[in-house]
Amino acid sequence: MIVTCSKNDLIEGINISSKAISNRTSMPILECLFLECNNNEFVLMGNDLEIGIISKVKATIKENGKIAVSYKIFSEIIKKLPDKEIYIEADDKNIVIIKCDMSEYKIMGQKGDEYPKPSIIEKNNGFTIFQSELKNMIRQTLFSVAIEESKPVLTGELIEITDGFINIVAIDGYRISYRKSIVESKDNIKIVVPGKTMTEIIKILSSDLEKKVTLYFDKNHILFDLDDSIVVSRLLEGEFLSYKQILSDNYNTKIKINRIELLSGLERASLISSVTKKDPVKLEIEENKIIIKSNTTLGSAYEEVDIKKEGESLKISFNPKYLIDALKAIDDEYINIKLTSSLTPCIIVPLDSDDYKYLVLPVRSND
Amino acid sequence: MIVTCSKNDLIEGINISSKAISNRTSMPILECLFLECNNNEFVLMGNDLEIGIISKVKATIKENGKIAVSYKIFSEIIKKLPDKEIYIEADDKNIVIIKCDMSEYKIMGQKGDEYPKPSIIEKNNGFTIFQSELKNMIRQTLFSVAIEESKPVLTGELIEITDGFINIVAIDGYRISYRKSIVESKDNIKIVVPGKTMTEIIKILSSDLEKKVTLYFDKNHILFDLDDSIVVSRLLEGEFLSYKQILSDNYNTKIKINRIELLSGLERASLISSVTKKDPVKLEIEENKIIIKSNTTLGSAYEEVDIKKEGESLKISFNPKYLIDALKAIDDEYINIKLTSSLTPCIIVPLDSDDYKYLVLPVRSND
Repeated sequence: MIVTCSKNDLIEGINISSKAISNRTSMPILECLFLECNNNEFVLMGNDLEIGIISKVKATIKENGKIAVSYKIFSEIIKKLPDKEIYIEADDKNIVIIKCDMSEYKIMGQKGDEYPKPSIIEKNNGFTIFQSELKNMIRQTLFSVAIEESKPVLTGELIEITDGFINIVAIDGYRISYRKSIVESKDNIKIVVPGKTMTEIIKILSSDLEKKVTLYFDKNHILFDLDDSIVVSRLLEGEFLSYKQILSDNYNTKIKINRIELLSGLERASLISSVTKKDPVKLEIEENKIIIKSNTTLGSAYEEVDIKKEGESLKISFNPKYLIDALKAIDDEYINIKLTSSLTPCIIVPLDSDDYKYLVLPVRSND
Repeated sequence: MIVTCSKNDLIEGINISSKAISNRTSMPILECLFLECNNNEFVLMGNDLEIGIISKVKATIKENGKIAVSYKIFSEIIKKLPDKEIYIEADDKNIVIIKCDMSEYKIMGQKGDEYPKPSIIEKNNGFTIFQSELKNMIRQTLFSVAIEESKPVLTGELIEITDGFINIVAIDGYRISYRKSIVESKDNIKIVVPGKTMTEIIKILSSDLEKKVTLYFDKNHILFDLDDSIVVSRLLEGEFLSYKQILSDNYNTKIKINRIELLSGLERASLISSVTKKDPVKLEIEENKIIIKSNTTLGSAYEEVDIKKEGESLKISFNPKYLIDALKAIDDEYINIKLTSSLTPCIIVPLDSDDYKYLVLPVRSND
């Protein structure tokens, strides 16, 4: 393999494909970056067997070939080279030669054939969506995927397409995060993508309002095609929770509140939490204000935030982390919160759309 | 104690004084910030018994008093409060009340009398220097204080004043870092300040070219008076190495080299070092260039940098870290390096002044 390319293009390719390279792996070759020149394309790939990321690098290819090379050493050398054209050669003894300006490096690679390739997915089933929209939908829900693996399917996010709408949903047993958008697709789709894949894909998705991504999938895998890069991941098996009837529209109390004021008050009140961070905060919803109270072994907090209220007054306690996560994910200045009783979940919704719903379970208070 | 002040002034004071608060301490009260209102001054203090930092905060004092309060909880609450006037009260039960806008916090403090005060230093012996100059001198030498405590005095920096010049020197057994400047002082002074104190003081010293700092000291302590804040530290005992005759002006080879080009080449070549990072790099000084070579189990590096040479050609090996540290500390575009033989130290100096000298011991090469 002999190829030349610019430092910047190579670094961009390394940054993307390396997101699939795991630090902890029992297969040493998975600590490598895979380089291949073929069909006039120079591609880099990282793969941890759950997720594989391929990025294409603009390059001049002089000889086809493939090689696997220690990601850590290769990427550090490339990053420190001068901002000039980089020459990469891999010979049949798997020695990788890197030349740039007055520098020459030789490092030992591993046979390219030994590097595991991700599954091939037929591009039959698929839909296209703006990258920025998908990025936002994932960012605004991902924090509530389940960490514990007692129900593995909940460690992923549901992507659901029905009648031209796409929903992304994450549930961890204490809360539901739900985002809705429009998508051009006549299919009805229901797949669950691992949280880890979503964590990496939002780093790669562009915020550019023009760029699109196409998602293809088969029974066990999903492929994100971003033109310059391709992400392939396995899907999670199992039945996702039927969440829709839980996100009920009924309520006895509805308040309109400034999101940042509520968020700041909750963040401060939760500083009084003990080290375990499990002390609840108590919300007292009165006529024109909400009072946030916290009493712990460390001290006491008292906060007031103005509200507009419809319906009954109410006292209810929460783990503040769950409310804080949801309030941080939302972009709106004002939100509605719907409540039924001290023992039933609250639901955070926009003032006048159904773009998102955040359900949070209350905790029992001591008094 | 009752006092009001602005959030910004309070945060600035907390940031400075808390630099002396240790995370790991066997005395719980040292995890506290000390607050005192007295003589129309509101002061904050952190103290780990080696270094104490006092900062003065602009404030309106309504009642004198003092209290010690958990630094972690107090500072986090203050940082998250709205950007408005903050009211702080400590009552005779050591409860600290913090009020700001619609928020009210109560946390348990500890009796102010129990907080240890730093030593009092008579302001007899002292000298004044620009903060930015002292900051630079420390930054450019501090990296080579000894880490190991086999000779405790070398874990500090020598501050030496002779005939109107100030030298700051750090030595760790493999290298010497030396900086010289002018100072208005008729005294001859020789004190050794702990590296840890220097690490904290450069964070507090301003880069503002107008601001000055006055240093006072007695047999065992040093006091840095920065007007708005005061740092008190113990001094290290013991005889510092007499370094002057080691920093000899003799050489057989002198080269002029671009500092960044040499630094970049060494940084890349050292990437080939094994995990222990102890593989040496070999420098081959030829007529018009220096060749940097490294051969390790991970691969090989070859770098060329242009030089202007006086004297003999030479091959010499170094631990690259020691050269890299010195080259990073220097600001000049070009430097001189003086060498005598493969087995004697090199000395890095400016082209045409004696503001700094960096001595680095070579390592024996295998070939």
